[in-house]
Amino acid sequence: MIAAMVDGRSADDIARQTQPDTTTPLKPWIRPAKHIEAMFTAANWKTLLGHSGASEADKVELYDAKAQEQLERYEHNIENYVGTLRLPVGVIGPLRVNGIFAKGDYYAPLATTEAALVASYGRGARLISSVGGCTTGTLAEGVQRSPGFALKSTTEAGLFVAWLCMNFDMLKAAAETTTRHGKLVELSPHVEGDHVYLKCTYTTGDAAGQNMVTIATAALCEAIIEKSPFKPVYWFLEANFSGDKKASAMSFVGVRGRKVTASVELPGEEIRKQLHTTSKRMEDYWRMSALGGVMSGSIGVQGHYANGLAALYLATGQDAACVAESAVGVTRIELREDDRLFVSVTLPNIIAGTVGGGTNLPTQAAGLNIMGLKGEGKARAFAEVTAAVCLAGELSIIGALCAHEFASAHQKLARGKQEPSKP
Amino acid sequence: MIAAMVDGRSADDIARQTQPDTTTPLKPWIRPAKHIEAMFTAANWKTLLGHSGASEADKVELYDAKAQEQLERYEHNIENYVGTLRLPVGVIGPLRVNGIFAKGDYYAPLATTEAALVASYGRGARLISSVGGCTTGTLAEGVQRSPGFALKSTTEAGLFVAWLCMNFDMLKAAAETTTRHGKLVELSPHVEGDHVYLKCTYTTGDAAGQNMVTIATAALCEAIIEKSPFKPVYWFLEANFSGDKKASAMSFVGVRGRKVTASVELPGEEIRKQLHTTSKRMEDYWRMSALGGVMSGSIGVQGHYANGLAALYLATGQDAACVAESAVGVTRIELREDDRLFVSVTLPNIIAGTVGGGTNLPTQAAGLNIMGLKGEGKARAFAEVTAAVCLAGELSIIGALCAHEFASAHQKLARGKQEPSKP
Amino acid sequence: MIAAMVDGRSADDIARQTQPDTTTPLKPWIRPAKHIEAMFTAANWKTLLGHSGASEADKVELYDAKAQEQLERYEHNIENYVGTLRLPVGVIGPLRVNGIFAKGDYYAPLATTEAALVASYGRGARLISSVGGCTTGTLAEGVQRSPGFALKSTTEAGLFVAWLCMNFDMLKAAAETTTRHGKLVELSPHVEGDHVYLKCTYTTGDAAGQNMVTIATAALCEAIIEKSPFKPVYWFLEANFSGDKKASAMSFVGVRGRKVTASVELPGEEIRKQLHTTSKRMEDYWRMSALGGVMSGSIGVQGHYANGLAALYLATGQDAACVAESAVGVTRIELREDDRLFVSVTLPNIIAGTVGGGTNLPTQAAGLNIMGLKGEGKARAFAEVTAAVCLAGELSIIGALCAHEFASAHQKLARGKQEPSKP
Amino acid sequence: MIAAMVDGRSADDIARQTQPDTTTPLKPWIRPAKHIEAMFTAANWKTLLGHSGASEADKVELYDAKAQEQLERYEHNIENYVGTLRLPVGVIGPLRVNGIFAKGDYYAPLATTEAALVASYGRGARLISSVGGCTTGTLAEGVQRSPGFALKSTTEAGLFVAWLCMNFDMLKAAAETTTRHGKLVELSPHVEGDHVYLKCTYTTGDAAGQNMVTIATAALCEAIIEKSPFKPVYWFLEANFSGDKKASAMSFVGVRGRKVTASVELPGEEIRKQLHTTSKRMEDYWRMSALGGVMSGSIGVQGHYANGLAALYLATGQDAACVAESAVGVTRIELREDDRLFVSVTLPNIIAGTVGGGTNLPTQAAGLNIMGLKGEGKARAFAEVTAAVCLAGELSIIGALCAHEFASAHQKLARGKQEPSKP
Repeated sequence: MIAAMVDGRSADDIARQTQPDTTTPLKPWIRPAKHIEAMFTAANWKTLLGHSGASEADKVELYDAKAQEQLERYEHNIENYVGTLRLPVGVIGPLRVNGIFAKGDYYAPLATTEAALVASYGRGARLISSVGGCTTGTLAEGVQRSPGFALKSTTEAGLFVAWLCMNFDMLKAAAETTTRHGKLVELSPHVEGDHVYLKCTYTTGDAAGQNMVTIATAALCEAIIEKSPFKPVYWFLEANFSGDKKASAMSFVGVRGRKVTASVELPGEEIRKQLHTTSKRMEDYWRMSALGGVMSGSIGVQGHYANGLAALYLATGQDAACVAESAVGVTRIELREDDRLFVSVTLPNIIAGTVGGGTNLPTQAAGLNIMGLKGEGKARAFAEVTAAVCLAGELSIIGALCAHEFASAHQKLARGKQEPSKP
Repeated sequence: MIAAMVDGRSADDIARQTQPDTTTPLKPWIRPAKHIEAMFTAANWKTLLGHSGASEADKVELYDAKAQEQLERYEHNIENYVGTLRLPVGVIGPLRVNGIFAKGDYYAPLATTEAALVASYGRGARLISSVGGCTTGTLAEGVQRSPGFALKSTTEAGLFVAWLCMNFDMLKAAAETTTRHGKLVELSPHVEGDHVYLKCTYTTGDAAGQNMVTIATAALCEAIIEKSPFKPVYWFLEANFSGDKKASAMSFVGVRGRKVTASVELPGEEIRKQLHTTSKRMEDYWRMSALGGVMSGSIGVQGHYANGLAALYLATGQDAACVAESAVGVTRIELREDDRLFVSVTLPNIIAGTVGGGTNLPTQAAGLNIMGLKGEGKARAFAEVTAAVCLAGELSIIGALCAHEFASAHQKLARGKQEPSKP
Repeated sequence: MIAAMVDGRSADDIARQTQPDTTTPLKPWIRPAKHIEAMFTAANWKTLLGHSGASEADKVELYDAKAQEQLERYEHNIENYVGTLRLPVGVIGPLRVNGIFAKGDYYAPLATTEAALVASYGRGARLISSVGGCTTGTLAEGVQRSPGFALKSTTEAGLFVAWLCMNFDMLKAAAETTTRHGKLVELSPHVEGDHVYLKCTYTTGDAAGQNMVTIATAALCEAIIEKSPFKPVYWFLEANFSGDKKASAMSFVGVRGRKVTASVELPGEEIRKQLHTTSKRMEDYWRMSALGGVMSGSIGVQGHYANGLAALYLATGQDAACVAESAVGVTRIELREDDRLFVSVTLPNIIAGTVGGGTNLPTQAAGLNIMGLKGEGKARAFAEVTAAVCLAGELSIIGALCAHEFASAHQKLARGKQEPSKP
Repeated sequence: MIAAMVDGRSADDIARQTQPDTTTPLKPWIRPAKHIEAMFTAANWKTLLGHSGASEADKVELYDAKAQEQLERYEHNIENYVGTLRLPVGVIGPLRVNGIFAKGDYYAPLATTEAALVASYGRGARLISSVGGCTTGTLAEGVQRSPGFALKSTTEAGLFVAWLCMNFDMLKAAAETTTRHGKLVELSPHVEGDHVYLKCTYTTGDAAGQNMVTIATAALCEAIIEKSPFKPVYWFLEANFSGDKKASAMSFVGVRGRKVTASVELPGEEIRKQLHTTSKRMEDYWRMSALGGVMSGSIGVQGHYANGLAALYLATGQDAACVAESAVGVTRIELREDDRLFVSVTLPNIIAGTVGGGTNLPTQAAGLNIMGLKGEGKARAFAEVTAAVCLAGELSIIGALCAHEFASAHQKLARGKQEPSKP
């Protein structure tokens, strides 16, 4: 433990300090409230001003006029509301996308606090658009819930699975009573000893769909419990076999959300001009970095999807926590004839929608409008543009690493010119 | 591909639509600018209003009075600025933490658009604090860059490694000329054929430190290139062996950022009262969900760290993209004597700081102040509270799954009462 | 590199020694021969005796009377034959198995050179049989080949997939012309950029089936190349997406070979008597070792399946190289009411058969006969007994670790009593 | 479950059949015996002949004259001895190796029952030797045991770790009292909640060393238990964090056994002549198969190390179960100037020795003699030749896949000419 080594505190002191403390009076609670109301927010601030490190100035920032005025807009997105966070947004584009569902020149809003990120993605978008755009495709879709059932024995687990397989239609009907847009497309049971994990896969229309599949699967489970001749000893609506909010190797074998790809073929000349390196060196980089990823035990091989995904997800009202699962995929760079460089990204796990969730919040809706992708019928196009944005990011960052401009770009934009040389 | 199956477009149509298009005139560029200035932002909006789906109303939301007024505050955090995104923030707490570096009752701000998240984490915090708080510890720290070098042969790769090992002090000095706070603590070379990946590990003071280690490693590499008798054919500042912005199995063998743990022992009675389930069922859940995670090929075993991490990272100015790497770890739940339930979380990859990055932005600084953890000397405490927040989340969500309240909680908070039953 | 550090050789010496050497005359070749004949073997030995470290005594061991006499028995199993290796075989049992396909008391032959292995598995078998045997089940079956196709563009990749999906019946017919027992049961295409991996899954009767699926898939690919309107630029019969001869996370999401489970419920009293530990401690061990496996980045969580699998595979004519893929799975240990301990193993990747391959070789056939599982209609039973053997091994080794008898057991059996205390 | 679907047995029948059966009398036990004696073997055979499917003919095969005569040679390698298995052995070579520790032309014995394997590896060896041999290097070494300790709290876990770090010398001395050759080179503690995994890394001289590190770590643990002020609640000698007998991502971050590399640069002309394909196509294959491996969730990227490793390990007295962990690594193929193809393999986890274990058994010693690598001072050379053999195998199999000769080679050698076309 660091403590014992750095500051000379004794083991006894440390042991004492880390004991549960049931005697010191606790600070006042933030009172949970099912609704957002100005009165509750005021009470929260009173608590914070009296008992936390926050000052009136902090309150002014978080709970400014607009945060007060738009308070009820957040009714279905937050609890214990104290105001709104502000994240700066930059825009890149136009990014030309020649896709199955996305077609045209897109501007993309990116919300981030990391200097150089927007500039870098913008550079990649410029490169792509300058050669006629990238090709994209939506390859598969499906969102999962995976309830788990503990049976009485391994044999009952097997018989339970056989029963599930024979009752697909009934279970599908039960699930779909809860939703207009969600469709159960597959039931995939997995036995481990006397446990059964049931992967339920749905299409969810233009919504990201996590609530939708939760509620539908709850209904499906109730039908199982009621009708199966093999009663589980206990069961859970989600038993962690769905990949929800975490990177998993499984996503490459199937899909979670939408699986999309984007690719471009670049003339060597443009790489020299715009990225200051060569197509050959870009391929060299890919080879070395792909194996670096493999040996570090990452899932897939790619550079920095997480940067673009987090920034785009935030700016368009997606769930930022889904970056944990979405930021896996495969980037491929391949030198072809006539010094042309093929570059593709394939992401099997884009969880995003153009309706529902945070997409109706004031600034998030604006973000979707900047893309021209708000509302019904736009989710596949959104997923394809997302892949295109990731492609832009990979091109630019790999170009910078190849041209030895990576450190200097960050230094310039993050620290500014006037900064002393030692941070 | 979905396209070919859903809408009857012909293969030829699809092929034509997805070709690069170098003839249609491109929409106007968002002009890259190294500085933020109102004039540039105005130009960006002119472009968007004329050529994207964004309207004046969208501009008013993103580029409101405050976004205009505080424009220069974002100078080192964004490019191509068009305004600020607003994310609702809820607060939970007090969360009592008995840690090595964090000690006291903390309020934690969470920025999210996912209904029920704040309420759920708040419920977990209440449970923890009601039994005297959780114990936390900072176990290790270190941030990596991993340059890669292509040598002339596998033998030269080996000799190059031997040279690196003998020149640690010189390389450390070279790296540390660039930074006041960063210290190179380990050089770990990994040979693959004629390639060498050099994992450089630094401590970074109270900063998350990614820029710091980038710039220091650039200096270190320059020293290598200048002085090594074995000259690489080519090399890259980062060869993807560092785990940067992606989940990797490697993080469990070492550390990336800070490795922290939080644990609590709960009486069965409190679990019944506050979570409406039993300690036995919580252990049952853990067993099934741990193996669910294993079989899905996830890294570590846990429930939903990503939810709490993303929300807390955003609200305190951390890099949201780091959720991709931070959201791995191990949750353990164990039934002990007298119906007491031991629950712990261990996260080896918390990338967060209390200085630098986005921590000085207006609302983000307010978030850190709410926690009382802004500025020098607070980063370890911040990491420990982060672990405690993840522990709170795991307790609440697992409790909900055990009590069969998971779907109904989401239904109630996300859809509201007035919603029709079919979304 | 170790060299440079341990023995003071100079970098130049090392560089010189590791250069390709095209001047020193090469030793004489072992002449490749498509058939096994005594004359060829004699020639091979002449070469070895003249140019390797092998002596006449070595020849006598490897190429003894039986190896000479049975030479033609190995015609379809080896090339460049020089004789037979001898591995000692021990037998355990009877192991009572109450399975779907295996039912009765089995003796199992184990070929190994690791002391204590047979004794340990035998102890586990005794424990299982003493409580009425274990329950087993065959849960799924299927063997894969995964050809890969490079298309002209990502769009063609998508259209190619659509074409494959519409031509399943034709492709199935093409594959099945080559085999009496193999049936194509699933085609699963996976797009990455402009590449398509086509997972072809077959049932293979009672054979392990790897050659069968290779030959069938070659025919299937020829049909694709001939008939698809989208011609690949190039393609390969196997593109490494099948998990062949390597552990892969994918095997948990589906099956490779046969997926089997075995479980038993043990009274605490028997654990104390036979394993000298408690059911509680066995559960403690499982918890800690499961997380140890997770954090080491292993696939699945288990102890030492590889030991039992390698020994049983060898003794029964299976392919020992398949241990690399078969030795993954999930062991679960769970303390239940009345001090009863539930223990199960689930292995998704048993590649084994009771016909074909090495099963007809003289001693290997004897191994299968000892089990009573040689020939047609026995492969599922074989797979179930394999799971039961793995269960026996896990019980015994975990018991030894819990009772602190692990090191002493190895010391006693591997080193013998008469050995000095320092090896 | 397959059962329920294939043969119409009722759920009740299946449930009855899979129940524990404590009433049917059990067949007679194979009596465990600590020593090997002809009398015991005779008793074992009496049991098998009376109660298993084995016949006198089977006994004659397994327990032939030599197996009887050499019975005591197996005293420290097997229990419950019933005879010896015979595996056919083929030899390849000479394989020219220009290594740090291996230098010269090696013949390699391969024991397998898979047709085409020896022929294929022999073809690869011929290609390598024809261009002056491959370059090899031993990059690192170390064998691990990882005991696990459950402490009273997470804080005690941290303090325990601090104590371990301060007592390295004492613990090293304790471990090394048990062994002449083993040296403790690193102690690496990993905390998870209130558990501590202690990775103990040793060098083990020329032995594979698994028993050695087990016994040394037992002594080390006794010293900990006796002297640490923080007493574990319970502990285990191995807590599954060492990678023992299983593939783990961890092995790439460090080493287990020996980490070795082998590489060669091939003129395009030789590839055309000897492999009937082009260097360009070999690179194409690598790219596609590397990503195939990544997406299947395998550890590392390679083709079929397991084939060569299993065959070589068996023929030289290594532990065949270690194939599960050894068969991971990275194959890299890269097209360079003048149509030259660089190919390398890097294996971080070769567990093999030239003394101890099975290396003294009659035919196994002959195998090592064929290589000229039996006894003290040869283990690193053995590891390097092992890498060279894997390189030979990768070249040949990838060549066959590129030249579309893979299926036909297997068909010809495994099934023979006289076989009907339908197997």
